[in-house]
Amino acid sequence: MRQYPQSALLTIESLALFADYYELTMGQADFDRGNNSICTENYFIRKIPQGNYLVVAGLEQVIHYILNLKFTDADLAWLQSGLPGSELNDNFIDYLRNFKFDGDVYAMPEGSLAFANEPLINITGRSIDIQLFETYLLSVMNFQTLIATKAARVVQSANGRTCFDFGARRAHGRDAAILAARASFIGGVKGTSLVVAGKYFDIPYMGTMAHKFIQDSPSELQAFRDYAKTFPHNTILLIDTYDTLRGTRYAVQVAQEMAARGHQMRGVRIDSGDLLSISQAVRQILDQADLQAVQIFASNDLDEFQINRLLKAGAPIDGFGVGTRLATGAVLNSVTGEGGASAMPGVYKHVEREEDGEMVPTLKLSDEPGKSTLPCKKQVQRLREDHQYAKDRICLWDEVPEEEGLMIPVVRDGELVYDFPSLQQIQGYTYKELQQLPDRYKGLSQGNERENSTYPIEISPQLSSLQAQLIADRAKLQL
Amino acid sequence: MRQYPQSALLTIESLALFADYYELTMGQADFDRGNNSICTENYFIRKIPQGNYLVVAGLEQVIHYILNLKFTDADLAWLQSGLPGSELNDNFIDYLRNFKFDGDVYAMPEGSLAFANEPLINITGRSIDIQLFETYLLSVMNFQTLIATKAARVVQSANGRTCFDFGARRAHGRDAAILAARASFIGGVKGTSLVVAGKYFDIPYMGTMAHKFIQDSPSELQAFRDYAKTFPHNTILLIDTYDTLRGTRYAVQVAQEMAARGHQMRGVRIDSGDLLSISQAVRQILDQADLQAVQIFASNDLDEFQINRLLKAGAPIDGFGVGTRLATGAVLNSVTGEGGASAMPGVYKHVEREEDGEMVPTLKLSDEPGKSTLPCKKQVQRLREDHQYAKDRICLWDEVPEEEGLMIPVVRDGELVYDFPSLQQIQGYTYKELQQLPDRYKGLSQGNERENSTYPIEISPQLSSLQAQLIADRAKLQL
Repeated sequence: MRQYPQSALLTIESLALFADYYELTMGQADFDRGNNSICTENYFIRKIPQGNYLVVAGLEQVIHYILNLKFTDADLAWLQSGLPGSELNDNFIDYLRNFKFDGDVYAMPEGSLAFANEPLINITGRSIDIQLFETYLLSVMNFQTLIATKAARVVQSANGRTCFDFGARRAHGRDAAILAARASFIGGVKGTSLVVAGKYFDIPYMGTMAHKFIQDSPSELQAFRDYAKTFPHNTILLIDTYDTLRGTRYAVQVAQEMAARGHQMRGVRIDSGDLLSISQAVRQILDQADLQAVQIFASNDLDEFQINRLLKAGAPIDGFGVGTRLATGAVLNSVTGEGGASAMPGVYKHVEREEDGEMVPTLKLSDEPGKSTLPCKKQVQRLREDHQYAKDRICLWDEVPEEEGLMIPVVRDGELVYDFPSLQQIQGYTYKELQQLPDRYKGLSQGNERENSTYPIEISPQLSSLQAQLIADRAKLQL
Repeated sequence: MRQYPQSALLTIESLALFADYYELTMGQADFDRGNNSICTENYFIRKIPQGNYLVVAGLEQVIHYILNLKFTDADLAWLQSGLPGSELNDNFIDYLRNFKFDGDVYAMPEGSLAFANEPLINITGRSIDIQLFETYLLSVMNFQTLIATKAARVVQSANGRTCFDFGARRAHGRDAAILAARASFIGGVKGTSLVVAGKYFDIPYMGTMAHKFIQDSPSELQAFRDYAKTFPHNTILLIDTYDTLRGTRYAVQVAQEMAARGHQMRGVRIDSGDLLSISQAVRQILDQADLQAVQIFASNDLDEFQINRLLKAGAPIDGFGVGTRLATGAVLNSVTGEGGASAMPGVYKHVEREEDGEMVPTLKLSDEPGKSTLPCKKQVQRLREDHQYAKDRICLWDEVPEEEGLMIPVVRDGELVYDFPSLQQIQGYTYKELQQLPDRYKGLSQGNERENSTYPIEISPQLSSLQAQLIADRAKLQL
């Protein structure tokens, strides 16, 4: 047999090279100029792409990466073979060979509710070391936070009905599908259709049939009978291969045959057409046959806006399979057509560095209002009123006692000091967080004043005046 | 040290469970009803989400998966432990244990130009076997085709200027970033910032500095000098940390110092603000200092629409780093605001099955016009006029001699019969394909009659009448 290229395998022996090359060229130049002072970088999201809140997810993967980051000999030999003009020298390669993170990580736990500009992760360590984390950290945090947030919105719109992740086929490759199942579960979906995610994360998985199973049978009725025979305790029939209402009548026939054998059909699934009118017609046929217990499941390009619209119009749908728009985190209002890239615009920014034994604040300036970064290692405080979240305050690290801040210790001096909760625990935590957020901050759209307000975020006076001072100092320098 | 969960590792020993569970429940029910006849499934894309053409990518990963698909004992033990109500039985588990694909795959080579509804992959094999491929095939083909197509559009808009993939940090996790670099290269970008993709696919990678390198220095000028000292042959300075025009003047100073040492500064990079007016002001400062050879590179939420707008307005930009919108394949016109989910809506559909030794066509019906599937294993013929592509014809497999069809043999009787080209060869093939597509089909937007026409796709009369006949037969059955 001929060979396919090794690159088809998509296996990576080392994650160390999952970095943008500038992290290494900067490292080389820092190495040469003798700068490897302690500094802090912050992960935060400047703007929430949709809605008013974020559900933070991805920390487990980030911490695993940070604590396991190691350049293999093969990585180093390849790096040393070099990029003409941007070669790394032997001394710096040796530095990388001995890489071991020995700093601190503070972070909001997964499942936390968060808001724009709040630090979600603080990493303090040697400058050359912690800048290596940028690409992997951003990729994993941005994606899972995008999806966990999307899932929370989808689940909220379903108002108690079951939602399942059906998105693997439209996810951006293998890891995206698996991480989307994970993050969707954090956001509140019941489970996934993707088997490997069920196994990997110990979360519910499910599946019944595709149109192929019906096409591959002498008749639709026969296909339904065959499936019910194999799976009498979990029969959900896909009824829209040829004609949905006729499919429903075949399903009724099979449900009655099952009842005669002492089995209860679980449901029918609709995957195309106008889900409102079709679900109503299907419900009517089922009810007329006294099959009130047979549920209706729907899928077909759903998202929070479509589900909201369907349920408000009275669609008798009991569960939703949500695919493309969940697993890609589509930043699109499919009703109003407001659009955006399917990405969470999180960034990882340098905020302070050690100079002569003291931490000195630093920031990047911007002409765009509010886009200059907030300096220093920061903490977030959440203020409550009547057991509900009322306001957040972004402040300097020492302004609040550690136990009152939302950022908790995860790694200290390179050692893990945090017990990772199970995914089930994280899902429960998200649920409790969302219960404490007043409804007026949970509208699906932004900028719709009638149903939606922006959650108040305050910058502490100390932090605010420090930022203003730094901007003024910088302006003086440039005169 | 405490432990993080194994699930943080994101390693998968077996790809076999990268499947939606219905592929296994259908398999079990097929096993029970004794159906495992030979059939064909087609991968195709019903609607091009943006623009008028597709650049096909992902085949290498699909073929690797198909030829290596194997259920490990651990996979099978886990499957056997079962999902209540949807358990797989021991006989079917044994069938899976012995899984080995022994069928045929025909496909359009990677880098091919294709259009809506054209089969891109035909897979013929045992029913239970080939339905297992759906999720992985769709995930990998949909994503890479989305990105290769997006990259071709971006490169086209840059009109000869260099484009680089900068998107890893916003890609949907690890594989997405790596596959986006691969597919972007197929579509024509020069390389990537993601080191592991450079190593893995042997394509150019690059990187210079982030704002951190400047913030982490006593002064911007000093940071520039330090970088130029370390990398005198590839000095590209990021000039927008504090004030872009002042940054430009520091860059001029360093360029002159470099020249005195016999070195040539390569360029400056702008990553924020109004790229048009800033690039013009920067160019002016550089030119006044007689630094015509110093290039200007730009990044900051770019896509094909932004690049087109910038160049039409005369922005003196020599190269573009394209991030979020490339690596997520954002289906969004950032100028007009037209939106969509960042996904390629490809499907994998059952089109024929063996019955009494003959292949019998099958289709799924739909009330929506044009959404009923095209039956049978199909071929695509491309008609030329004056060495340019003029029209495609989707037809039955035997209507054209094999050497005239766009679908070529890749796997026969389970054996690889295709020599995979290198990525460089695929990129060259895409380039040639695009040269043969007349300009009127290359407009960036759809439905803009002035600049854009839809490439003509014809369904052969035989295929068309066969589909009509099947629809009529089905209607009769349902009377």
